[in-house]
Amino acid sequence: VTDTRLELELRQQPAALERLLLAQGATAKELGALLRRRDVRYLLIASRGSSSNAARYAQYLLGRANRVPVSFATPSLYTLYQQPPRLDGALVIGISQSGESPDVRAVIDEARRQGRPTIALTNRPESPIAVAADAVLPLEAGDERAVAATKTYLNSLGAIALLFASSTRDKSAFRELELMPGRIAEQLERSFEDAALLDSYGGIHGGTVVARGINYGTAFEVALKIRELSGLLFEAWSAADLMHGPVAAIAPDWPVIAIAPSGPTLASMRTVIDGLVARGARVAVVADDQAVLAQGAVPLRLVEQIPEWLSPLATVIPGQVAAFHLARLNGSDLDNPHGLSKVTLTL
Amino acid sequence: VTDTRLELELRQQPAALERLLLAQGATAKELGALLRRRDVRYLLIASRGSSSNAARYAQYLLGRANRVPVSFATPSLYTLYQQPPRLDGALVIGISQSGESPDVRAVIDEARRQGRPTIALTNRPESPIAVAADAVLPLEAGDERAVAATKTYLNSLGAIALLFASSTRDKSAFRELELMPGRIAEQLERSFEDAALLDSYGGIHGGTVVARGINYGTAFEVALKIRELSGLLFEAWSAADLMHGPVAAIAPDWPVIAIAPSGPTLASMRTVIDGLVARGARVAVVADDQAVLAQGAVPLRLVEQIPEWLSPLATVIPGQVAAFHLARLNGSDLDNPHGLSKVTLTL
Repeated sequence: VTDTRLELELRQQPAALERLLLAQGATAKELGALLRRRDVRYLLIASRGSSSNAARYAQYLLGRANRVPVSFATPSLYTLYQQPPRLDGALVIGISQSGESPDVRAVIDEARRQGRPTIALTNRPESPIAVAADAVLPLEAGDERAVAATKTYLNSLGAIALLFASSTRDKSAFRELELMPGRIAEQLERSFEDAALLDSYGGIHGGTVVARGINYGTAFEVALKIRELSGLLFEAWSAADLMHGPVAAIAPDWPVIAIAPSGPTLASMRTVIDGLVARGARVAVVADDQAVLAQGAVPLRLVEQIPEWLSPLATVIPGQVAAFHLARLNGSDLDNPHGLSKVTLTL
Repeated sequence: VTDTRLELELRQQPAALERLLLAQGATAKELGALLRRRDVRYLLIASRGSSSNAARYAQYLLGRANRVPVSFATPSLYTLYQQPPRLDGALVIGISQSGESPDVRAVIDEARRQGRPTIALTNRPESPIAVAADAVLPLEAGDERAVAATKTYLNSLGAIALLFASSTRDKSAFRELELMPGRIAEQLERSFEDAALLDSYGGIHGGTVVARGINYGTAFEVALKIRELSGLLFEAWSAADLMHGPVAAIAPDWPVIAIAPSGPTLASMRTVIDGLVARGARVAVVADDQAVLAQGAVPLRLVEQIPEWLSPLATVIPGQVAAFHLARLNGSDLDNPHGLSKVTLTL
């Protein structure tokens, strides 16, 4: 039974992604050319909240695409301090699902003042940020009303993947991306099947999500989603940073979700999972490899054979479903959680 | 009674900072000229752990200095993925107290391969990272043996402040910086006086540290220090991001430490403190303004009239002392906490 707006939107994700790919392929091709411009030495992304988690995907993916480094803006330098950096060499991308964030807007305005190219990724092509930027890549996620972003997050990743494929002019990348709506639909089915494994998490107070490399942003998004929906104290760490001290707070029985799809980061993730299991943590593993799934107490299966560069579109799904399931266990109001509002305006 | 290595090193901080300023002023002047080079379009910092918290100070301070944007490296692109970005326009700074981090080393090596200038900030001028870089700014913190970094962190901030003062050639900045060892000594006294106010925190499980702008890194450092020493689940948020959803997990009585020195971010911090108090959080306020101190349940006083750009050198002190005090309340072994080791090597 689909009884909440949130679950409806969760399940709309494959269709939303398909709509984006069909509607915005041509625009993405034009914008991809911008990323290859010789005077673009780095990308500067301005974002807040879930959009910042999508921005981390861009950092890894677009960093590998044209070997162009990706940096994040510090909006308060533009707003509170009124000392914006000089931006020569930058291509500025604002990501804002609502298109309303005044601080993201401030970074775009400053870039235009300095004559630098700007792109807005937003679900609202008529919003202030879209109007302020030179070019817009609409997210095409459709109306999203649940406070917790799901399909706008997935489509932000999809838009970044489109920019990657078009900036590298890699035809196999386009073909791999076109398969993703179907893979996401399979992933949703599988993750809803696995969700009952989380019933033993009824009495938890919090948890830690850990990932590395291209899924670093996934860790933040999954932690944020659980936190927003259930009010549980979930946090995210890079597997590399966690071992530099913060692991001290991982006590026996503490819930950990390890995002460990196949790819270059898997060996490093396996070592970290072993270390966490040795400390007695209760580890749920999001993986496609059977041996890796067996390392933890709770296996959360990924659909197999998704290319590593697209894995964040799939790995977030078990996390979203876990957030939904944990919030229900916790008795939260899924569409109006914990006094949050859909759009937050910060300067 | 000074009965631990940690407390000894905490109290050595004013002397350590003074040593840095006396010994490395001339080197900092040379390096400051590098930051003004016309082909330097942005700074790229590679770091892990506490050094990444110091890097956030550099992001705000050096971003304001010559209006040169500061970006953080994603070491796994250089190591696990072996797809390093092109670095034209970058000046690369590696920060590593031990000088051992292989991933920080990988970023420096790649920058040299691409013919870009590199600087190492390290407490060990003979370490691999120092040897790999074109230039070294030694931290001069002296021998640090407690697992939790204190004086190497303070001196990392001091080194960044020296680079700021020398790159802007601002004589009043040098004078303000030279006063800091004395101010830090006062701050230590005041913070040890205030520590007893934290006795009521004996039964807590975790907490949240919140800050904005130039003290954003301070929030991470204070949370890390408490976490490393006491094993309590402390986390850090930008005041702007916290209100975008993560605040859902701030339940009544949850401990919050708000870093709120006078300056451009104070109005925004005051609003956030009010919001947290309204949610029933138990807020300790680190501030110099009496009205701000009165907003929270626990006032942790800052020494007055420290210039905002240098405030992170002072604001970390009440956090370090709180970490020390909470760990004692918790019965932790302060010099060998929670199975951590002093140097962590990640690729």
